[in-house]
Order: sequence, then C-alpha cells, then structure tokens
Amino acid sequence: MPTPIASLDTPAALIDIPRMQRNIQRMQQRLNELGVRLRPHIKTSKCLPVIHAQIAAGASGVTVSTLKEAEHCFAAGIRDVFYAVAIAPGKLPQALALRRQGCNLSLLTDSVAGAEAIVAFAQQQDERFDMWIEIDCDGHRSGLAADAPALLEVAQSLSNGGMHLRGVMTHAGSSYELDNPPALQALAEQERRLCVRAAENIRAIGVACAEVSIGSTPTALSALNLDGVTEVRAGVYVFFDLVMHNIGVCQADELALSVLTSVIGHQPDKGWIITDAGWMAMSRDRGTQRQRHDFGYGQVCNEAGDWIEGAQFSGANQEHGIISLGTAQHETLVTRFPIGSRLRILPNHACATGAQFPDYHAVAADGTLHTWSRLHGW
Amino acid sequence: MPTPIASLDTPAALIDIPRMQRNIQRMQQRLNELGVRLRPHIKTSKCLPVIHAQIAAGASGVTVSTLKEAEHCFAAGIRDVFYAVAIAPGKLPQALALRRQGCNLSLLTDSVAGAEAIVAFAQQQDERFDMWIEIDCDGHRSGLAADAPALLEVAQSLSNGGMHLRGVMTHAGSSYELDNPPALQALAEQERRLCVRAAENIRAIGVACAEVSIGSTPTALSALNLDGVTEVRAGVYVFFDLVMHNIGVCQADELALSVLTSVIGHQPDKGWIITDAGWMAMSRDRGTQRQRHDFGYGQVCNEAGDWIEGAQFSGANQEHGIISLGTAQHETLVTRFPIGSRLRILPNHACATGAQFPDYHAVAADGTLHTWSRLHGW
Repeated sequence: MPTPIASLDTPAALIDIPRMQRNIQRMQQRLNELGVRLRPHIKTSKCLPVIHAQIAAGASGVTVSTLKEAEHCFAAGIRDVFYAVAIAPGKLPQALALRRQGCNLSLLTDSVAGAEAIVAFAQQQDERFDMWIEIDCDGHRSGLAADAPALLEVAQSLSNGGMHLRGVMTHAGSSYELDNPPALQALAEQERRLCVRAAENIRAIGVACAEVSIGSTPTALSALNLDGVTEVRAGVYVFFDLVMHNIGVCQADELALSVLTSVIGHQPDKGWIITDAGWMAMSRDRGTQRQRHDFGYGQVCNEAGDWIEGAQFSGANQEHGIISLGTAQHETLVTRFPIGSRLRILPNHACATGAQFPDYHAVAADGTLHTWSRLHGW
Repeated sequence: MPTPIASLDTPAALIDIPRMQRNIQRMQQRLNELGVRLRPHIKTSKCLPVIHAQIAAGASGVTVSTLKEAEHCFAAGIRDVFYAVAIAPGKLPQALALRRQGCNLSLLTDSVAGAEAIVAFAQQQDERFDMWIEIDCDGHRSGLAADAPALLEVAQSLSNGGMHLRGVMTHAGSSYELDNPPALQALAEQERRLCVRAAENIRAIGVACAEVSIGSTPTALSALNLDGVTEVRAGVYVFFDLVMHNIGVCQADELALSVLTSVIGHQPDKGWIITDAGWMAMSRDRGTQRQRHDFGYGQVCNEAGDWIEGAQFSGANQEHGIISLGTAQHETLVTRFPIGSRLRILPNHACATGAQFPDYHAVAADGTLHTWSRLHGW
C-alpha cells in the first residue's frame, strides 16, 4: 500500500510530528526542571502549527528574528513577542504599529546610539517601548560586554528616556563550534554568569533590570544550573539537524525535518545518483563542513528515513543533487535506486533548509499528512 | 533629498534596471550575431517583468528549472517552455496538464528508463511529448556522452514510442570553475562540438533531431563559433554576480542585483559592523570561496553602490551580517557607518540570493521604484 507521502510532489519538506513533539517536550521539561521559562525562537520553523505546539507545551511568548514574524505571530493571537535583533531605527514605525495594535512587542539594542534613536522616536510618538539590552558572552557577534561602561550608559539612556528596561539577553552562538559536554557545560555557565553579571551591574546603578534571558539550543541542553536566569531562548531544538547532531545534543531519531526527493538520473561510471533536490531545496548551508563529520549537503536516507551508509550528498546545483555511492556500487546503482524512486535527506541546518520551502508537509504518527505554511521574506 | 530606495525596509533585493537591460541586450546581440536563438533560463530571476524584458529583446521561449516556473510563465502568455531538468516520472501528470492547456512544454531525459517511463505514460494518455535528450559535455553532472550507445537507445525508444524528439541539449556547468578566456573558449567549443556530434549520431540512425541546445553564461559569452547549434540557454547573465565577475565574463558595472541593508551595530574593538542582512538575505552561497577572489558573503558597497575597499563580509547568521573593516579602522567605524546607515551588498550568486526574497525592488534610470514579485517554491 502506498504511504501518504508517496502522493507528494518532490522536493518536499517533511516534518515528523511525533519527533517534533518529543523535541518540544524535552526542552520544555528540562527548563521546567531548571525553573526558567522557555521563549522559543520561531525563526527555525516560521510556522504557526509548530509555534502553537510549543506554546501548548508551556512556552512563554516567542522570540522572532524579523518584524514580519512578529506580525504573523500577533495576528495568530500571540501577544508576548521579543524581536531579538538590534532594531534598525528605520523599523521603529513598524514596531510602534504592532504595539499600538496591542502586541506586547519588546525590542533590543546594544549601543548608546541605538538607545538614543529609540528614545527619540518613542518620545516623539509618546510611546514607552519594552526594551532588552544585548550582552556579548562569547565574542561571536553582537552585544556589549557585561562589564563595559557602555552597558551602563545604554541602560541609563533607556531608563532616563522613559523606556521600560525588561532585562538583558545574550546568545552563546559560539556553542555551534563545540562538540563535547564539558565544553558545552562550560560555555553554558559562561553565558549564564556573564548575563547575570550584566543584570547585576545595571541594578547596581539603580536601574531596574528584572529579566535575564539566555539561550542557544546547545547551551540550553547543556546548562547544569541557571541561577539568576529568568528565561531561555532556543530555536533549532524543535527540529534538530545534522549540525546539532555533530555538536552532540541530539540523537539521530530526534531529527524531525527532512527533504523528500526523487531519483531523476544516474552516472553509473562515477557511482552517482542524480536527484531533484539541489541547493534550492537543501539551501547552500554546509554547516557540517568543519565539524567532526562532514555530511555534504545532507544525510541520505531511504524513503522511510533509514540512513543509507556510504551515500554522500556530494554536490548540488539549483535543482539537481548529486549523491555519490562510490564506483564499487556502480553496477547495482540503477537497480537499487531506479528512476522515480524516492529518498529522504536530513539537512545540515533546519533553519536554512526550511526557509527554502513555502510549506511543510507534516506527517502524524498514523501517517496522516498536514500542509503547514511557512513565512517567507521580510 | 532622500533617494527612493531610502523608503525601503531592509534587507531588500534591488535590481538596477538599466544594468539589467544592458545585460539582456549584450547576450541577445551576441547570439544574434552568432546566428542562434536565445532561450533564457528564468531560474535566475523567477520574475515576470525580467522575463518579459528578455522576450522583448528577442528571446525565443524560456528555459525553466521547475514545473511551477513553467506554469507561471504559461499563465503569463509564454507558450514555448523547456523544462530542462530530467523529469521525475511522478511529475508527468503535471506536465501533461500544462500541455493540455495549450502550453508547448518540452521535457528532458537522459536514460532509457526515463524515456520508457515517459513513453508508457504518454501512450496511456494518448499524448505525444516534445522531448530533449541531455548530453554530458564535461562530466560535471547529468547527461549521456555524445558517443554512448545508450544515447541512441534513448533516441530510438522515444521515437519508437511516438514522442517528438526536438533535439539534444547540454550545459557546460564546469565553466564555473574557469577564469580565463582561452580555457572558456576551449570549453565552449567542447560544449558545441559534443552536442552537435550527439545530434549527428542520432540522425545517423534515422531519428530526426533538429535542435542542438547548449549553454551556460560563461560559455555563451566565450564561444567563437556556434556552428550546428540552434539555441543557447543562459540564465545568470541577466543580473551577473561575483562568481561571474571572478570567471571574467562581466565587469563590476554590469552587476545588476544587490541587497540593501541597514547597519544595526558595531564591535569597534574587532573592527566589525553588524548589519541586518545575514544569510537569510544573502543565502549561504559561498561560490567565490575557491575562486581567484573570495568575496565572503558578498562585496560591500555604500548605498549608492560604490565598492568599499577593505570591507570584508566575513560572517553571517540568520539575520545578522558581520562586515570586517579591520582593527586599524576601529576608531572611525562608528562615525563612518552609524547605526541606521545603509549599505548595498553584491551577491556571490544571483540565483541563490534572489531566491531568498519574495519581491525585488527594481530601480529605473530615473530612480523610480517598481516592486516585482518573485516565484518561490515548487
């Protein structure tokens, strides 16, 4: 009997709902036990049924990477939204419009100039924005050091300007470069310690700073204690991916996103299968390239999702994938993977691969298929 | 006075219409002079105003990489559509539906099994598909060798099965690995010679094979003669990009696609600017990584489009770009590129960057802005 996914056109993005639900439960239970709230970063899925499943499991509000995601969530009834990218001043009118509609949108800055632009706009509009200040805990991207004099200037500027400083936040993005529990635990502790210290430094000058928000999927799953932290933001845990697998924070049976593809050709002399999932389907993300195992453009599985050992997703053009099985298998290639047969590919990076698709096809435990639309663009 | 692009939210994909029009003219005139038709590959833009400009300049039909592109073009009145990816048998009903609506859709195969699946379906549906056979001219991906016995089997199978064999096609995709005119001219000649030979081999067994279709932007712009060729397919020439610039087939003032971004932060000690164009805006395509000049995630320009020497787009997260100016400039960084100021980034690969955006913002010579929507998904 054909499985429901046999009816899908390829390439298609599949979500394994039971795996996704287990991933959601795992993170939520962990943070419940550590006594902090979870504010999932929805930039991974950009998909309402996924977000609603996270909220149903106990999440408190959402984290977004664009104001379009904020608008999308608010339109679906989600009011507590944290736009966790330092806001460009040009986006303030869009943020204001959301707040005026009733969205409890909070904003981020990490500079005096940014804070001043926000205050100037807010005063002009008679608005009191809910603000966070970004802390740099590992030097990988944005944020102010916990002990930087500028941190106190920003806090003071926001406070004097009449804004509501909700708290400080950080993201230990360098966790993506690690792959063993002691290193991950140490970074998680550094993330916690520096963000808590930043909050304490702000409180010491008499500015209220109630919240301490940290997070990345690897550190959230590695932290041994979260004293002083009030919430954790994490995103990719909802699907996991091969980058997370290499880091060591998930098992193969927790990978919930895959790409269904059809075999469209062979180059038997080279031991190649050609598929209709190229980089447009997988994205160009080669996040495992410098990790302990380079998965090429993804891990090749059969249609049921079982890993095919020795199959390397070695090349990708826009709508062509090249899977190499080696010349030792060139004789059986064509019969083992005939034209029209199907494979599933586990992606390196779920956020990047998902973004290539307008819809997910979500597969329930009983095989029922659901089409879940996904947000695209800004 | 603010420029019209000052009104745009960031990140935004900009098309410089005069550059695009010159690129279109350049390729069309070249192929007119060589006496062959141009069938542009619309996978680069996936955008009707761009495609209509190509047709207005003299293009004959279009090449597509997905059946969704075919449907989109046909709905806009474009009837001659070549789906230039070997068709998965599961997509034949969708192709049939397009033909039954009056689209002159032609299909591709490169295997006996593929040909047999097409014939079986066509006979069942009482349809006569227009077919092309894919030739491998440089070993980079799909196709049959010009002298492969299987080529004649495929041609015979299609012909005996009642299909209309329009011709043979090839794509010298390995041209992306070259960067000097003699090597490009040699590959262009190899592409021409092998595809013509494949057609001659088919004709020699008494099967009609009228057309010889070749193409890649680098070889199309390098070929010295196209004897025996009837049409050229090329895509990225419409916008060009940094990969093409490294290959040497375009000048800086021909790069027609860029991404507008806002400065959202700084790390002065590291000499970094943080922007709101990360990999979601640029794509993860690092196509210049192994070329003569590695442009990181793109060439950084000021808002007017002038290249900023020494600015390296060194890192990208989902909605954050990291531009490194080096620590020598850390003192002037914040005043030279203040929060909220804007930059333009030239992409490595126009096809991949364009795909990240639902719309282009096309800028006419007089500065007028047009919003041009772009196709997404399959």
